[in-house]
Amino acid sequence: MPLRQSSLPQRIRLFEMAPRDGLQNEPGAMVPTETKIELIHRLAKAGIRHIEAASFVSPKWVPQMGDAVEVMRGIRREPGVVYSALTPNLQGLENALAAGIDEVAVFGAASESFSQKNINCSIAESLKRFEPVLSRAQEADVRVRGYVSCVLGCPYEGDIAPQSVAQVARALHDMGCYEISLGDTIGVGTPLAAKRMIEAVGHEVPVDQLAAHFHDTYGMAIANLYAVMEEGVSVIDAATAGLGGCPYAKGASGNVATEDVLYLLEGLGIETGINLEAVLETGYWITSQLGRKPGSKVALARGGCPK
Amino acid sequence: MPLRQSSLPQRIRLFEMAPRDGLQNEPGAMVPTETKIELIHRLAKAGIRHIEAASFVSPKWVPQMGDAVEVMRGIRREPGVVYSALTPNLQGLENALAAGIDEVAVFGAASESFSQKNINCSIAESLKRFEPVLSRAQEADVRVRGYVSCVLGCPYEGDIAPQSVAQVARALHDMGCYEISLGDTIGVGTPLAAKRMIEAVGHEVPVDQLAAHFHDTYGMAIANLYAVMEEGVSVIDAATAGLGGCPYAKGASGNVATEDVLYLLEGLGIETGINLEAVLETGYWITSQLGRKPGSKVALARGGCPK
Repeated sequence: MPLRQSSLPQRIRLFEMAPRDGLQNEPGAMVPTETKIELIHRLAKAGIRHIEAASFVSPKWVPQMGDAVEVMRGIRREPGVVYSALTPNLQGLENALAAGIDEVAVFGAASESFSQKNINCSIAESLKRFEPVLSRAQEADVRVRGYVSCVLGCPYEGDIAPQSVAQVARALHDMGCYEISLGDTIGVGTPLAAKRMIEAVGHEVPVDQLAAHFHDTYGMAIANLYAVMEEGVSVIDAATAGLGGCPYAKGASGNVATEDVLYLLEGLGIETGINLEAVLETGYWITSQLGRKPGSKVALARGGCPK
Repeated sequence: MPLRQSSLPQRIRLFEMAPRDGLQNEPGAMVPTETKIELIHRLAKAGIRHIEAASFVSPKWVPQMGDAVEVMRGIRREPGVVYSALTPNLQGLENALAAGIDEVAVFGAASESFSQKNINCSIAESLKRFEPVLSRAQEADVRVRGYVSCVLGCPYEGDIAPQSVAQVARALHDMGCYEISLGDTIGVGTPLAAKRMIEAVGHEVPVDQLAAHFHDTYGMAIANLYAVMEEGVSVIDAATAGLGGCPYAKGASGNVATEDVLYLLEGLGIETGINLEAVLETGYWITSQLGRKPGSKVALARGGCPK
């Protein structure tokens, strides 16, 4: 039986989520601004070239990200590293631009109920709100990334049709987003569902402009990433130490751990330019600051293993 | 881009490892015999049709399994369920036969150093020792399963050549083992390495006589199972609640959790005849007995999640 020819990408670009999606969803105390800055420095030093550093939302809604300006002003910019931030509205974008952000992001949902409960408006309304953000960003010559959540399932609606994901992805792409990050927000997807979703979205947006943003809540993220790389996806979102947890399941995993993604990619012979050992060190350091264990299986295996 | 035609099996046979490989490697107190018996009853009731129930080794080496006879005598046999046990030598086999075992297993390694350190003899010597076990089992009309450990890496030697795995698998098959279970003992494998290993072994032993016994130490087991199912493997070893841990990395995962495997298979539309909900209940129950949390991500997600 001949080994099926692998069609995996030669190189993957990894987009690091720990400072924003990660720390925003860590239960417990607020993380000091200097810890966030140190985390971002360490990630850049490990070779990561895309870091979501902050969120410019109202601190009324997300107090954990209330120091976005201080974080952005505090970091020492590493040449070649893109520091991005979430900017859900024009006010957030103006603040982000003033703080010298490199790139911004807007976020929609593939599920109508999730959109209503999470951002208090319909999918169509959310897309409409992004229009002025996109035009202002273009004017400022700042790239915009689009997130779509609930691409493989919704905590309120259950299954989500791949076609619904494709429509929202297409709308964000048409609006000018340079890349669409497809989020399995509650981590319920499995490999064939992930492949089918990418196939549907790939009809509307070129696959090299898609990113996989998979959560590991049900332990499927690594398998799903392997499956969508077979479909040509070459950008992966992940969070060092699996920071963030899952707001929909206490004690469960959220973001797939950067360490585990890098271990997978090294095993597959795929280049990233990132030093796994340095990311492991960063994961041990940030989780010791937070008083928890890393959510990366590679980190747990290495931590207790002489080899 | 059309979705690649999936070549996944329609049905998977799951071989449950929790009562033996799981409980043998749980740190801490000895598990009472009645708890083992109750675990085996619950697993059979959940629809599992292959259960490794005990190990007939000297209690000097593995005191946790010293009650193998009592366990085998204590269980109420469910029709259609195969109860198996490890029998490393003739003495163990005789005891297992006396206790009314349905099926037995012998275990070799694909790594010379691991064989020396784990069973105190070379690979060739270990195979020689199995010959009388195999002939006596055939005489008693009891099937023998063969395990090969370290198929994707060794804690002492590092990488293991697929050809070494193929040779040991072939020897066990030639000797009369009806199925060869290929163990990633330290959980270091990644999907393409797993595929290549199956390809090499598949040249020597028909792929429908191979089982994947993958540990999740580095978080890769689910992805590796998906990859080897694409190569035609249709038997999977797993342990409810991921019982067992990893003797080579304190605090790390061992056996892939049955719950997570079943979740994957359900998502892929592959039949098993096993009730995931009943396995989840069993996992919550046995881990509450052991005073630990389930090592299954599906269990953790469900445990904290209303859906």
